[in-house]
Amino acid sequence: MEFRIDKEVFLKSLQKIQGIVEKRTSMPILSNVLLEATESSLRVTATDLEVGMKCIYPAEILSPGRITVGAKKIYEIVKELPNQQISFSAKDNDWVEIRCGKVHFNIVGLSAEEFPYFPEVHEENLFEIESALLKGMIEKTSYAICNDDTKYNLNGLFAKTEINDDDVQLLKMVATDGHRLSIASCPFKGNAGQELSKGVILPKKGVYELKKIAEEDGGTLMFGFMDNSAVIKRGDSYMVMRLVDGEFPDYNRVIPTSNDRSIIINCDDFTHSVRRMAILSSEKFKGIMLDISESSIRISSSNPELGDAMEEIDVSYGGEPFSVRFNARYLLDVLAVTETESVEMKFKDELAPSIILPDKSDSFLAVIMPMRL
Amino acid sequence: MEFRIDKEVFLKSLQKIQGIVEKRTSMPILSNVLLEATESSLRVTATDLEVGMKCIYPAEILSPGRITVGAKKIYEIVKELPNQQISFSAKDNDWVEIRCGKVHFNIVGLSAEEFPYFPEVHEENLFEIESALLKGMIEKTSYAICNDDTKYNLNGLFAKTEINDDDVQLLKMVATDGHRLSIASCPFKGNAGQELSKGVILPKKGVYELKKIAEEDGGTLMFGFMDNSAVIKRGDSYMVMRLVDGEFPDYNRVIPTSNDRSIIINCDDFTHSVRRMAILSSEKFKGIMLDISESSIRISSSNPELGDAMEEIDVSYGGEPFSVRFNARYLLDVLAVTETESVEMKFKDELAPSIILPDKSDSFLAVIMPMRL
Repeated sequence: MEFRIDKEVFLKSLQKIQGIVEKRTSMPILSNVLLEATESSLRVTATDLEVGMKCIYPAEILSPGRITVGAKKIYEIVKELPNQQISFSAKDNDWVEIRCGKVHFNIVGLSAEEFPYFPEVHEENLFEIESALLKGMIEKTSYAICNDDTKYNLNGLFAKTEINDDDVQLLKMVATDGHRLSIASCPFKGNAGQELSKGVILPKKGVYELKKIAEEDGGTLMFGFMDNSAVIKRGDSYMVMRLVDGEFPDYNRVIPTSNDRSIIINCDDFTHSVRRMAILSSEKFKGIMLDISESSIRISSSNPELGDAMEEIDVSYGGEPFSVRFNARYLLDVLAVTETESVEMKFKDELAPSIILPDKSDSFLAVIMPMRL
Repeated sequence: MEFRIDKEVFLKSLQKIQGIVEKRTSMPILSNVLLEATESSLRVTATDLEVGMKCIYPAEILSPGRITVGAKKIYEIVKELPNQQISFSAKDNDWVEIRCGKVHFNIVGLSAEEFPYFPEVHEENLFEIESALLKGMIEKTSYAICNDDTKYNLNGLFAKTEINDDDVQLLKMVATDGHRLSIASCPFKGNAGQELSKGVILPKKGVYELKKIAEEDGGTLMFGFMDNSAVIKRGDSYMVMRLVDGEFPDYNRVIPTSNDRSIIINCDDFTHSVRRMAILSSEKFKGIMLDISESSIRISSSNPELGDAMEEIDVSYGGEPFSVRFNARYLLDVLAVTETESVEMKFKDELAPSIILPDKSDSFLAVIMPMRL
């Protein structure tokens, strides 16, 4: 196996799969990248058995073949090489020789035979989806994905298509960690297939890699399902992620329906205030207090070791005064992904979950549990 | 005590002393910043007993007085405050009240009585020195300061004035960690005082803070000594650092005099090559090999787990071929502070210390010990 490739192209290809390869693994082959020289192109593949990526690049192939090398080391090497053509060839005993100008590397690889199978993608099963839409929906929900590995059914993003009352098909994405929940939804035309109408859980790592792909360019990408996996195709790049095998909780039951105390608050003012108050809240719980009265919201925090802080923001609220305590982090996460000038907050009481939505927009809805007073 | 100050001015004053305050300390007062409202200005002081800084800022003083508060917390708070005037007042039991617009903080401080004494600086004892010169000399030497705290006499930068053979006064700075040594020297006019003609050791942390001050602006700053400390004054800012009480090794004896094998090598080519070869050298020792022959230098590294690498750079060298092994990090540190296009390397053999100097410049000289072959 032997090929020649531009340094910049090779570097980009190796950078793209760095997020996929396993750093610590009991299977050394998963730390490697598979390089396949076909007749006219180089295929670069990485997988951690849950999420895999394969990308195809132009290269001058002198002799076809396959080999794997340490993904991190080869990336470090190529990054430091002069900006010239790189000549790459496989030698006996899975050694690899890299030449570039006067530079010469021999590194030890592993046989391509050991590399896990990467499924053939059948393009006819894929549907088209706008990158910007996908990116926006992942942003608005992924912060709420659970990081507790024992709750495996919450370690991902739930995606589903639904037909609403106006007979419009919506694509929904939902994440929750048990303390908070975020739902993004968006009208979606076209046939998204059976899997999405039942609903699937995309694994957390796959979601972050998918977001990177969606951010790369505008335009559209192809999405679909096969063999319990989601498949993404963009140009000559393919990503496959194994769906989380579990039941996602019934999020509709979590969304409160009787939260009739509503305020509208400016996002910028609220964000800055919560950040200030969080300075004095305890490192661990980040609790801040909201005291809502007829004409203002008083935001405060206190810490027996440091002191206390408070400020008021004008809001209009006609109802009974009440108080509620939240984790500042949870509020800030929601405010960070809100694109509108204001948000609406809907409360029932100091114990029931509260709702935050962008003002005059139904693009997303967040539910957060209060902390005990 | 009560004062009003612009948010930006207060923030800058608190940022400037963050490097001085102790993060982990058995004396809580050293984590605090001393705020003193005099008749017309605010004095902001921090110290860790080794390095101290006092800066004076314009402020509207409503009532003079002194208080200390946690340096990190007050900085975090002021950073998040709206961009308006801040009103700061001390209350009973060392509490502090901060108001800014609608924001209100009460934080607990510590009595100023407990804060360590900060010496009065007598300006008549100071001499003038160019910031750029100071910054350059610190850059060219500080990388070689020893990080092993048990070798207390090497934990700093040695500074000394000397008269050379042409009767020119030179300011010299020297650092060494036992494996390498760097000397910067520069002609210096004016009377630098008795302490510098004997030589002093500036503590490592003080050197880094001094570099920050020298980087702030061009122009000059005032430098001097009192009570076993070095004193720096720039505008309304004062820094005091306790000199390291120890004997600095006789660095002149360390500089080899019989290194008669000399090569001139391009810095850029050499830097890139060493960085490439270092990828395969072991994490811990970073050893790379130089094989010098008549017309070229062959740079190589090998690692039993990864493979090997090599490249050649053209150099002209008339002597016998020889080989020498270095820690790549040591070479890169020297090359990073070299401002000339090429460096001269002078060798004796594979065991003796080698010299690196900028080509056609005597602004600095580095000595590095080879690794065993």
